[in-house]
Amino acid sequence: MPDVELPFTRLEYADRLGRVRAAMDARGIEVLVAADPSNMSWLTGYDGWSFYTPQAVLVTGAGEPWWWGRRMDANGARRTVHMDDSRILDYSDDHVMSTERHAFGQLAGLLCDMGHGSARVGVELDNYYYSAAAHQHLVAGLPDADVVDATALVNWQRGVKSEQELVYMRRGARIVERMHARIREVIEPGMRKCDLVAEIYATGISGTGDFGGDYPAFVPILATGADASAPHLTWDDKPLLSGEGTFFEIAGAHRRYQLPLCRTVFLGEPPSDMRRAEKAVLEGLDAGLDAARAGNRACDVARAFFSTMERAGFHKEGRCGYPIGISYPPDWGERTISFRETDETVLEPGMTFHFMPGLWMDTWGLEITESLVITADGPGEPLADVERGIVVKA
Amino acid sequence: MPDVELPFTRLEYADRLGRVRAAMDARGIEVLVAADPSNMSWLTGYDGWSFYTPQAVLVTGAGEPWWWGRRMDANGARRTVHMDDSRILDYSDDHVMSTERHAFGQLAGLLCDMGHGSARVGVELDNYYYSAAAHQHLVAGLPDADVVDATALVNWQRGVKSEQELVYMRRGARIVERMHARIREVIEPGMRKCDLVAEIYATGISGTGDFGGDYPAFVPILATGADASAPHLTWDDKPLLSGEGTFFEIAGAHRRYQLPLCRTVFLGEPPSDMRRAEKAVLEGLDAGLDAARAGNRACDVARAFFSTMERAGFHKEGRCGYPIGISYPPDWGERTISFRETDETVLEPGMTFHFMPGLWMDTWGLEITESLVITADGPGEPLADVERGIVVKA
Repeated sequence: MPDVELPFTRLEYADRLGRVRAAMDARGIEVLVAADPSNMSWLTGYDGWSFYTPQAVLVTGAGEPWWWGRRMDANGARRTVHMDDSRILDYSDDHVMSTERHAFGQLAGLLCDMGHGSARVGVELDNYYYSAAAHQHLVAGLPDADVVDATALVNWQRGVKSEQELVYMRRGARIVERMHARIREVIEPGMRKCDLVAEIYATGISGTGDFGGDYPAFVPILATGADASAPHLTWDDKPLLSGEGTFFEIAGAHRRYQLPLCRTVFLGEPPSDMRRAEKAVLEGLDAGLDAARAGNRACDVARAFFSTMERAGFHKEGRCGYPIGISYPPDWGERTISFRETDETVLEPGMTFHFMPGLWMDTWGLEITESLVITADGPGEPLADVERGIVVKA
Repeated sequence: MPDVELPFTRLEYADRLGRVRAAMDARGIEVLVAADPSNMSWLTGYDGWSFYTPQAVLVTGAGEPWWWGRRMDANGARRTVHMDDSRILDYSDDHVMSTERHAFGQLAGLLCDMGHGSARVGVELDNYYYSAAAHQHLVAGLPDADVVDATALVNWQRGVKSEQELVYMRRGARIVERMHARIREVIEPGMRKCDLVAEIYATGISGTGDFGGDYPAFVPILATGADASAPHLTWDDKPLLSGEGTFFEIAGAHRRYQLPLCRTVFLGEPPSDMRRAEKAVLEGLDAGLDAARAGNRACDVARAFFSTMERAGFHKEGRCGYPIGISYPPDWGERTISFRETDETVLEPGMTFHFMPGLWMDTWGLEITESLVITADGPGEPLADVERGIVVKA
């Protein structure tokens, strides 16, 4: 058995497991099947790009969690998880891309063998890596069980970060600072977008001399000019032009912890309405950070931001932030709290958010954001240090 | 409405739609809900990193397909799809990360409004981007419909590539050739893995002077030494050491078309058993390529490869290849045919595969692969031109 270099202490994993078990108990869930790769990693340390085939972590009433997945990835589990090899379960390769047998049917059989055939089983119904077919096969194989929705049960336990998690997020912050510095350094009219993205990737993955970068859970988004109204189109190989603004939605990542930060660059002189929006967003950010205090609610941050924008004549609604932490593609949010006017979740010290106001207008877009941690007292603390204003380059 | 620069002619999209409709007719499916981003893109041209929220393409009995997704991404659809704006449907932002309303419930209402409330509706039950919850909300909103499994119905129509698709894949091949050339150039003992991955990304995204690179559907995998037995662990920031081999599982990508190609590098002198395996794999590749002829079956390729390996004393089973083409994370396979001994699918000219024999031993791994196109006559044609043998660097 290889030596496993865990990213967290065993004590921390035990604490996490305890939190999850308490949440399970509160809902009468006896067995939890967590297929979200972020939840799997947070609970066990498992880290691999293997979520394109079925896999999950099982939490039962006692003992360590179980890792379950494809046989070849069980080797990856042995090298990354904190549990003993005996807690690693697998299925054979003839379940992969097969129309005859489904891995989640095999898991149902395993759960029956383990004595959980008539348990109350929680599953993450609304997750990328738990398909409708996975659910049907699991349910069909557990005819006497009560299979209930436990979407985000683990995610909610991830909200308050430990000291060590904050260490990794601060490393992500150092990395994203370098990525933005590199953009400022190399961007110029005529540069192809793909060449700029190549620079962003190289800087983010290489990291610093002290620690390397990991892959972000989202590709770099850099929308230019009128394309900014379509905030999720990816890059092409066309040159950047003078007289256009581009926002950069990027993240630094370290040991799967994500630190998103957006800035906007204008090649030439920004139009006056964009400058007016910049002023409003900067004020809104300050107002929101000031409201992001322990004891306040998520909606207080949203209201502070939106009311500032409203006073400046920009009507915006929706949400302007979400929690961040460990994550795998396709999303770096924790999918629990939202900075939105209807979310009354109380903020606690150690929670981390991407405070993410975006203005997507018809002919330009403006994204200036901060990733922050809620402190014991005082306003939200930005984790990265990158000048906020529009970067102007000729 | 912005000018849309389509990657394919309207005629080609019409042909694809015709193929999908024929497959729907054959199974009595009146409405298809395709949530796989690759299928969405192949049918409509839509291209955005927006699959982390619900979206789908709808194909009904007549007329153009419909794009459906989040309101802010409808702007992205207007800029990328071949259909008229009237075929773009959206849902409001309060469906996003909400526990109160699910976007697929809204879609069910739209389908009822369109007169499909009692139709036979095909869904992709086993897909990353169609969750168990999505299915439950769609079915609950269509109480009179017959919702059936249509997983991979579109994928199967994507198998034979058009001339223009092959143009994009050959561009991906030019890119992956450069990526491997760059690896040979810079790899050396002491280099941190993250710095090597930074080079791989930069080269792949930058592409060539004539065309840029796109993001691959899989992160670069580079497993070293004993870690090769765990084929899906990602990189770290540790230095590469003399006396160790590393395989590189990477792809060039252009306009979402993926061209994977794996090679193995050894720093120092490879051990004799690895050399013996190399010889077997090279022979097996030749035997497989020779069997990859139009009219032969997928299993013929697998048998040609595995029997060559067996004769050389390497017992391997499972699959050694899969179809490739347009793809989004987390997987670059088409999830239809497998080069495996039980797959009797007949190969047709224009089909493209990643012929992917991997040997993952206890203390080393060897991956030497080819992406190929089935030709009208003659053996499978490798799309990229990269020397196959183990790269030895001191």
